[in-house]
Amino acid sequence: MSKILRINTKNKTYTFEDVPEELAGLGGRALTSKMVLNEVPATCHPLGQANKIIFAPGLLSGSPAANSGRLSAGTKSPLTGGIKESNAGGLVSQKLAKLEIKAVVLEDKPEGDDYSMVVIKKDSVEFLPADEYVGNGNYDTMEKLWDRFGKKTGVMCIGQAGEQRLKAASIHVADPQGTPGRALGRGGLGAVMGSKKIKAIIVDDKGTSRLAIADPDAFKVANKRWVEMLRTHPVCGEGLPALGTAVLVNVINEAGALPTKNFRTGRFDHAQEISGEKMVENMEARGGVVAEGCHPGCVMKCSQVYHDKDGKYLTSGFEYETLWAFGAHCQIKELDDIAMMDRLCDDFGVDTIDTGVAIGMAMEGGLIPWGDSKAAIELVKEIGKGTPMGKILGSGTAFTADALGVDRIPAVKRQAFPAYDPRSVKGVGITYATSPMGADHTAGYGVTANILAVGGTVDPLKKEGNLELSRNLQVATAAIDAAGLCLFVAFAVLDNEDGVQTIVDLLNAQYGISLTPDDVVSLGQSILNDEKEFNRRAGFTKKDDQLPEMFNETFPPHDTTWDFSTDELQETLKF
Amino acid sequence: MSKILRINTKNKTYTFEDVPEELAGLGGRALTSKMVLNEVPATCHPLGQANKIIFAPGLLSGSPAANSGRLSAGTKSPLTGGIKESNAGGLVSQKLAKLEIKAVVLEDKPEGDDYSMVVIKKDSVEFLPADEYVGNGNYDTMEKLWDRFGKKTGVMCIGQAGEQRLKAASIHVADPQGTPGRALGRGGLGAVMGSKKIKAIIVDDKGTSRLAIADPDAFKVANKRWVEMLRTHPVCGEGLPALGTAVLVNVINEAGALPTKNFRTGRFDHAQEISGEKMVENMEARGGVVAEGCHPGCVMKCSQVYHDKDGKYLTSGFEYETLWAFGAHCQIKELDDIAMMDRLCDDFGVDTIDTGVAIGMAMEGGLIPWGDSKAAIELVKEIGKGTPMGKILGSGTAFTADALGVDRIPAVKRQAFPAYDPRSVKGVGITYATSPMGADHTAGYGVTANILAVGGTVDPLKKEGNLELSRNLQVATAAIDAAGLCLFVAFAVLDNEDGVQTIVDLLNAQYGISLTPDDVVSLGQSILNDEKEFNRRAGFTKKDDQLPEMFNETFPPHDTTWDFSTDELQETLKF
Repeated sequence: MSKILRINTKNKTYTFEDVPEELAGLGGRALTSKMVLNEVPATCHPLGQANKIIFAPGLLSGSPAANSGRLSAGTKSPLTGGIKESNAGGLVSQKLAKLEIKAVVLEDKPEGDDYSMVVIKKDSVEFLPADEYVGNGNYDTMEKLWDRFGKKTGVMCIGQAGEQRLKAASIHVADPQGTPGRALGRGGLGAVMGSKKIKAIIVDDKGTSRLAIADPDAFKVANKRWVEMLRTHPVCGEGLPALGTAVLVNVINEAGALPTKNFRTGRFDHAQEISGEKMVENMEARGGVVAEGCHPGCVMKCSQVYHDKDGKYLTSGFEYETLWAFGAHCQIKELDDIAMMDRLCDDFGVDTIDTGVAIGMAMEGGLIPWGDSKAAIELVKEIGKGTPMGKILGSGTAFTADALGVDRIPAVKRQAFPAYDPRSVKGVGITYATSPMGADHTAGYGVTANILAVGGTVDPLKKEGNLELSRNLQVATAAIDAAGLCLFVAFAVLDNEDGVQTIVDLLNAQYGISLTPDDVVSLGQSILNDEKEFNRRAGFTKKDDQLPEMFNETFPPHDTTWDFSTDELQETLKF
Repeated sequence: MSKILRINTKNKTYTFEDVPEELAGLGGRALTSKMVLNEVPATCHPLGQANKIIFAPGLLSGSPAANSGRLSAGTKSPLTGGIKESNAGGLVSQKLAKLEIKAVVLEDKPEGDDYSMVVIKKDSVEFLPADEYVGNGNYDTMEKLWDRFGKKTGVMCIGQAGEQRLKAASIHVADPQGTPGRALGRGGLGAVMGSKKIKAIIVDDKGTSRLAIADPDAFKVANKRWVEMLRTHPVCGEGLPALGTAVLVNVINEAGALPTKNFRTGRFDHAQEISGEKMVENMEARGGVVAEGCHPGCVMKCSQVYHDKDGKYLTSGFEYETLWAFGAHCQIKELDDIAMMDRLCDDFGVDTIDTGVAIGMAMEGGLIPWGDSKAAIELVKEIGKGTPMGKILGSGTAFTADALGVDRIPAVKRQAFPAYDPRSVKGVGITYATSPMGADHTAGYGVTANILAVGGTVDPLKKEGNLELSRNLQVATAAIDAAGLCLFVAFAVLDNEDGVQTIVDLLNAQYGISLTPDDVVSLGQSILNDEKEFNRRAGFTKKDDQLPEMFNETFPPHDTTWDFSTDELQETLKF
């Protein structure tokens, strides 16, 4: 029987609790958002003793279902001041599921300055002193922890940014190679973990057996269909394995939606130089790994290992959004320098999107010149050093803009925009405005029907259909996040009549239940309602569900503007 | 006939407008708040082109009424994100009134980096290049401008903090000695002026005649009563002239309400060393001026000139709140070092309360030790240098706490608490929570009945009567701010049955109208309603009208806690 592991970080005690009825059918984001709503006072300080951070494997995590190893983490965000769910791959989710732990809750907060780590095994939960790792980045910390606890453990930890409790600090989850390419990236979760003085959590599933499945035969049948569906889809089975998410640089640039020089135009003259094609060319010439999964059971393998020009490991999990944030947004065209900044962010434990967009704010504010990649690298290094400049940048885009008196800030709910201009991909724009998470492409990825012709087509430049597109995707995404599935399964699901039913079959076979596709929709809506309710209690109003003024400007090359009113936007998530 | 002077800072053009009917009877805060509500989109960026900053003399400014020379400035605040009215003495208010200018409105925003200044004379409004003053502090700037335009002009300008558009930047108004001891201090107005690239405004009333008064005889009679009332009140006529506002250090410490070490206790062991008594002892030994008015016609003279131990000018307008913020709050006991920080803040143009409380955040975050005045001075100097640390501090208390990951933040609506603990002076606590301005003692100074037995007595430690006390004072204060009267007249007004009637008589005599005391109450309520409405549109909710969690702690020596619920607080400003 799964349990909730509740950890008091002040007293260094823990309890295993039975799962109450209300939470029994929930996992991943559904569980973290419900627990945050129920247990965290919405007006508390995110770094205070009343906040909690909750880690939960998805409903399918730990099972053999393909791409089901995502971990959700929920909290009150230091970045947005609202609820936050962030999710990541890596090894932790599946191991927690195998230990039959439905959620790990970090509560309260110690008074002193000493750091601890928590080691979770089949028959024990241990607090160990972690001061020896303090000041270490995620690369060193993960290496040392694997040396100490073995390479079969799942590790998640914070770097210097989390220790400094910076608003853009992430929590990194070791991938199967033990490197910190996987991040609970957005919303400052690392700061919350830092405020609780937990440097790392180590999860060891030694001694556990296979997860029980209620109807193994039905599960096998469904999973076979599932794997087939993923492998044969052009995005999941071809685009992502070939070029990673970096496949999008040329695609989005071609669509005129690659925000360049802080969202002034949708085409970057040097897009080719920072593209997936260029990245793969380098990897093929220098060594590295072109297609790698972020967790066992992944069949899409959108991750990679990127080497420097001397053929040495530089970074991994090098995403399109990172390429864009440090690249086109800052007018930087040096791919290796962007890779270095990706590595630095992973090492210090800070969100690449909010940090990259913040570097653009430093350029906007005249601190360094546009396009100066060397100056940008030096700025990013400040985060690790803990200088005042580093604290500003590590606090994210909106904070950096404020410190520098910049009023051209691409952020909603204080979270930086990702790599798609809302005027040229309006389905994503609706998501930026209305997601309870703040500007977040993964919360309702309208690029599907807007650009990729996945799940139908909706004109990206017009209003028609985009609100509905975002709504449906936000609902579907919330459900996918609850299942612990990788979001990229959505491409295949949207293009297969049988897609949602296959997920439902997997869930039904695993738990011996009888959900319908309608139940999945209800689950997604109920997650969003929980999140909206938390934000309402935290003081959010409809003015928080808008894009900033700068998007009233006409955007080349399509010369579109943002033309949704506040009241129209309020219709998006009304169920 | 009075006009509104509208200045377009982008095009460097101006117009004189007739005063529309709706604004005709308004002045000072009544006028700035109404115009901000009507003209500034509540969700705009405070540093963007849509924000405006409006300067308005009070209704009695320019007349011979004692203590009527206060200037109001209104805008959308970069600090709070809500509406802001700040007011100050100095020479500008009376001169604008004599020029028959009811309001000066700075609009729009230039694109380049060049600074201008605006010179307003009887028959001209001129834009002059001001780049030669950029980088100068307020002391140098004011001296140079007086040298250039003559010592009879009124000057207001920004220092390095306003140029950097920092959230705690103030606008300084030269006092009769030409020094920047007078500030439109709170809420970051200097950043708005900086965003519009206006370094200074010079007001020259040469050639104007006395302001016309409708009934000069009635005015003379009323003003005689008015002066008498102020001169004979123990606070206005004795306490303030003798010791300035610093008279409060020992009084509030004795009352157990002097927040010490970031609001951990209400008594500071070294209160005597930073008291008004000690300040006067130094002034008498070193030279300086014990009692000085901030504008002509002041009969209370709570300002002063404070010299260093070598008998050289150090600072002026050295207030209780400054002594407290850099003193007890930071456990600093060196009076001369506090005076130095007051001077630095005046020179850089940054609010002493938000900056002083921010220094306490730096101590709370472990950046410098508690009580280390030399380290504190070095930190304050960073603001003038424009370093990243300076940008953090100059952005105020809440911002500094955020940068350092501190969760013990004495601020409401992102504005720092002043020098009275809300658990020991509950009437002021209600004002902190509910004023549309954020934590602001001057918005409803419950210290009157709570501590000073002025206008009756209300137990400062109990709930009873404090909500009503704050409500009545907030209404009265808004009206006083509309009249252009110094807030300190309230002591005398509250203790004289004839007080409000005397102000009404002055207004009626000046304008030939027939207001009643009830009209004054309605005016105050209507100002607050305008301000609340702006904040509502800007997205403020009842959660913004609360004190932070730290005030749930028991507060020595009286061991009181903050015990007003959110819903109770919402009753405060319901009219």
